Amino acid sequence: MALGEFDLIEKYFRPPVRRAALGGGDDCALLMPTPGMQLAISTDLLVEGRHFLSTVAPERLGHKALAVNLSDLAACGAEPLAFTLALSLPRADAGFLAPFAEGLLALAEQHEIELIGGDTTAGPLTITITVFGQVPPGQALLRSGARAGDDLWVSGCLGDARLALEVFRGRAELAGEAFSAVREAMERPQPRVALGLALRGVASAAIDLSDGLLGDLAHIRQRSGVGATLWLDALPRSEALEAQPDALRRECLLAGGDDYELLFCAPPDRADAVRAAGLASGTPVTRIGRIEPASAGLKVYAEAHGHEPLDLAGFAGFDHFKR
Amino acid sequence: MALGEFDLIEKYFRPPVRRAALGGGDDCALLMPTPGMQLAISTDLLVEGRHFLSTVAPERLGHKALAVNLSDLAACGAEPLAFTLALSLPRADAGFLAPFAEGLLALAEQHEIELIGGDTTAGPLTITITVFGQVPPGQALLRSGARAGDDLWVSGCLGDARLALEVFRGRAELAGEAFSAVREAMERPQPRVALGLALRGVASAAIDLSDGLLGDLAHIRQRSGVGATLWLDALPRSEALEAQPDALRRECLLAGGDDYELLFCAPPDRADAVRAAGLASGTPVTRIGRIEPASAGLKVYAEAHGHEPLDLAGFAGFDHFKR
Repeated sequence: MALGEFDLIEKYFRPPVRRAALGGGDDCALLMPTPGMQLAISTDLLVEGRHFLSTVAPERLGHKALAVNLSDLAACGAEPLAFTLALSLPRADAGFLAPFAEGLLALAEQHEIELIGGDTTAGPLTITITVFGQVPPGQALLRSGARAGDDLWVSGCLGDARLALEVFRGRAELAGEAFSAVREAMERPQPRVALGLALRGVASAAIDLSDGLLGDLAHIRQRSGVGATLWLDALPRSEALEAQPDALRRECLLAGGDDYELLFCAPPDRADAVRAAGLASGTPVTRIGRIEPASAGLKVYAEAHGHEPLDLAGFAGFDHFKR
Repeated sequence: MALGEFDLIEKYFRPPVRRAALGGGDDCALLMPTPGMQLAISTDLLVEGRHFLSTVAPERLGHKALAVNLSDLAACGAEPLAFTLALSLPRADAGFLAPFAEGLLALAEQHEIELIGGDTTAGPLTITITVFGQVPPGQALLRSGARAGDDLWVSGCLGDARLALEVFRGRAELAGEAFSAVREAMERPQPRVALGLALRGVASAAIDLSDGLLGDLAHIRQRSGVGATLWLDALPRSEALEAQPDALRRECLLAGGDDYELLFCAPPDRADAVRAAGLASGTPVTRIGRIEPASAGLKVYAEAHGHEPLDLAGFAGFDHFKR
């Protein structure tokens, strides 16, 4: 069934409009942030074959496309408000669109945000979502606030999404149930919005992990002008990942990508406040290292009291034009 | 030269940040609208081979990608503030990116708006821009405000962009200078931002012409619950278009697409205010018809005092999944 562009928006993507003054269907959507709040805005573009496999279930793809954007709001400590969707797809195919919209709108509902506008066109399968959140002026969590002496923390587990990818690539093997769990991490990441909100006024800096731990830590280091020490054995991981060979496990933990956990910093005297934020938001948080002066560069030790840093040659952040 | 994703953003798309609290480079951009203003948001997605020809100069493509989005703000009477860019492209090619960014940022500079964030990735060439503007609550121009008895107006000239496309397709021929002019209309549309602002409080409804006059008028008719009468001979056109055969001229005028002019309505007693808005914004405005009760449907007459409406079979709005 070939639906027209306007029918398509109408049929699949027209949820009830609440917060927006005017949803999709006019030249612009109108949004009224709470007076005095700053607007936080983020855009992520997903391309088939690069950011997702063509084998992914459309419902999961809809979920993930919004989740990766909400993860950026989480990293800023912003409260999600609304989003727009720009979608190019080869055919207006109900078998794809209905479950895609279902996954997308279910996550939107969970975070009480609205699809306020967008664009659809025929073309290669690409998904661009722009999310809007709000944050009190001066309270956004930034990449630039880390200071030497801060503890380095991460939410959840690292590396499962990458492990799932390696199973698809044939580099790793996992039994049915274990595979389902890591595949869930890859295809249905849960953005850490509640943790981000709870970390306002607690964390000194934050970023969400999309490019891999070392790659995203490099952004904090660059923006904050700091070095860092990481403890490999402290990095939180699933049993499935723990059971993998050393080299693969290390790669998934340090350079996995697609984790969508929060990496954040806080002064040591705020450690209890960090743990409280984790509890309040129902999110596991783990201390994984320390922020150092810039001159210290980056060092990864096998354990917290190790003496010889690991050789990091061959580990780099994910870069869409280099890999 | 294969640039990395982060270098690429840094090198080509990092303009000075003024209005935004925080530009690209953190998880979110932070934007502070003027307190009390509504935020107007629009997204347009351009795909190579569908929305632009691969022969277009990158500088013009950069201009157009932003122009079509600013045109949506213009149609709402919103003051442009900022925009984000999501770009997928096959290679990080400086020969494309430098002039593309130049065209994009020159138009941004002209409208004093900032690129506050975005995303780039390898993939097919697609360009998604989301623009942000502001408008006092209740003053946005909507598609839904037209009332029977209103005059129907349009800015600028219609059909030149479509005529240029027909030259590329080999359906029309134009001498060098005339071709340059219509090609300019296709590749470098000028969004009618100043006119949109001047029409606040004057126009009862507005839309920008991207899908063609009849297609976009249909949106106003549907949202406002009205009919309309158009006068073909009143439609403003260039000399180049006037010189074309009847059928082609009519098609370009009524269903051209890509005009990026404003189609708007106003009560007859505001005609002087409309003309004043046109003068104040340096934009030609032309009265082209009348809004009718819904029961009248749509009728196009060859001239203002004609008796027999034209047969419109074969004219429809541009729909990306139907054509």
